[in-house]
Amino acid sequence: MIDGCGASPALRRYKLTIAYDGSGFHGWQKQQPPGTEPLRTVQGVVEQALVQVMRQPVCLVGASRTDAGVHAAAQVAHFDAAATMPVDRMAAAITSRLPEDVAALRVETAALDFDAISDVVCKEYRYRIHNTFQRPLGMRHLVYHCWVRLDLDRMNDAASRLVGEHDFKGFSAAGHGRESTVRTIEHCAVYGQVDQVYLVVQGSGFLYHMVRIIAGTLVEIGRRRMDSERINEVLCSGDRRMAGPTLPPNGLCLEWIRYP
Amino acid sequence: MIDGCGASPALRRYKLTIAYDGSGFHGWQKQQPPGTEPLRTVQGVVEQALVQVMRQPVCLVGASRTDAGVHAAAQVAHFDAAATMPVDRMAAAITSRLPEDVAALRVETAALDFDAISDVVCKEYRYRIHNTFQRPLGMRHLVYHCWVRLDLDRMNDAASRLVGEHDFKGFSAAGHGRESTVRTIEHCAVYGQVDQVYLVVQGSGFLYHMVRIIAGTLVEIGRRRMDSERINEVLCSGDRRMAGPTLPPNGLCLEWIRYP
Repeated sequence: MIDGCGASPALRRYKLTIAYDGSGFHGWQKQQPPGTEPLRTVQGVVEQALVQVMRQPVCLVGASRTDAGVHAAAQVAHFDAAATMPVDRMAAAITSRLPEDVAALRVETAALDFDAISDVVCKEYRYRIHNTFQRPLGMRHLVYHCWVRLDLDRMNDAASRLVGEHDFKGFSAAGHGRESTVRTIEHCAVYGQVDQVYLVVQGSGFLYHMVRIIAGTLVEIGRRRMDSERINEVLCSGDRRMAGPTLPPNGLCLEWIRYP
Repeated sequence: MIDGCGASPALRRYKLTIAYDGSGFHGWQKQQPPGTEPLRTVQGVVEQALVQVMRQPVCLVGASRTDAGVHAAAQVAHFDAAATMPVDRMAAAITSRLPEDVAALRVETAALDFDAISDVVCKEYRYRIHNTFQRPLGMRHLVYHCWVRLDLDRMNDAASRLVGEHDFKGFSAAGHGRESTVRTIEHCAVYGQVDQVYLVVQGSGFLYHMVRIIAGTLVEIGRRRMDSERINEVLCSGDRRMAGPTLPPNGLCLEWIRYP
């Protein structure tokens, strides 16, 4: 098919990179509880903008189904459309139709078999902890506030025990049944910058609430309420009750996703 | 009067330093439009916490009546109370009774004639501009978004013309009649850090909307829609229409207040 005058443009697959403040969203995935209005979700809001720009119904497939309150610096999604608009103008056109808590960073053409979910090589999540007595105030939607001084050496000792292929059953929330709870963490480290502490976790895939439970366990270790050996105990036993609490979503941000 | 068993404590004057995210407040000053509930204001919320901590009605006098949406890193207020609680425990006690968008940073005893308003020697306001094409997303309540690249040299040339004693009538909003519109700006400068531009203004007092109109005029100059000479024209003519727009409150923060 030729993209010319009169001929309709070919259906193409596009890779879309988006950023959002998750505070005002019920997570990524479209939801409509029975008998109610659809909830405000990132997928829903971005699909609405895409329909206006592409002038056709568009179905968006996102790499990570971030929870309510979780942010993204570079979420990736794919969609198919037969568009006449040049690809380098699409991101600005989409953003101009989006509310101010979400933005399209980039649109690229992709192979027709590109899949935002199954092609993921590696993702990075970052959990941000406001580690000082003073309240975070205007930053409170973007950080978790822990006023007890954290011991970063202890936390990094614990973090290093998570790296590698393990059964992360004890670091996941029940109820989201997946066949296997074995995952590989490629990098897990904690670093401090003035009064902010950042937990960085990289891997190809994560279980439900996994990063927030890892963050909760590392904070317990950093404030000396658990020892680093606890990591191995949770990995061996698969017992969720041995791990720390699930920290709130607002400190969590999907930083980037790498593809081949 | 002696602070002892059985004797009631003496009335003392206290100096309170507070920080807040102004996004959720109708400004500093208590307001109750006729026939409605009182609006949520910083003064109202902090007075409520003070009543609980001091166990007596407290009237708070704030140094700066910040507008709705304007933030403070260190607002100062005074109040009188006959308290038994040691002064070094008061800030934590007040903060624990405050919502999460405001915090008491410090409480100090002050001379009985200390006045948070009339004793001010100098204040600093900072206006923050998110100066990049990308949206500020989670920071949008704390910055003003200007996607046109600003020329900081032009802005600093203009800023330096504001320093000194001038009639700032042309840089103020009408309707808040004060006797004199002459004020002294001690320092006014613009600096950039990565993609953030900060306007810093120091002086003993400011007119209504003065910093936001100065910011709006400097942005017009920074994006080359006005020349630096415009500053002198506005100062000479006193004509508000010659100055730039009043920028939104969310970029503005009261940074500190100095007393003798």
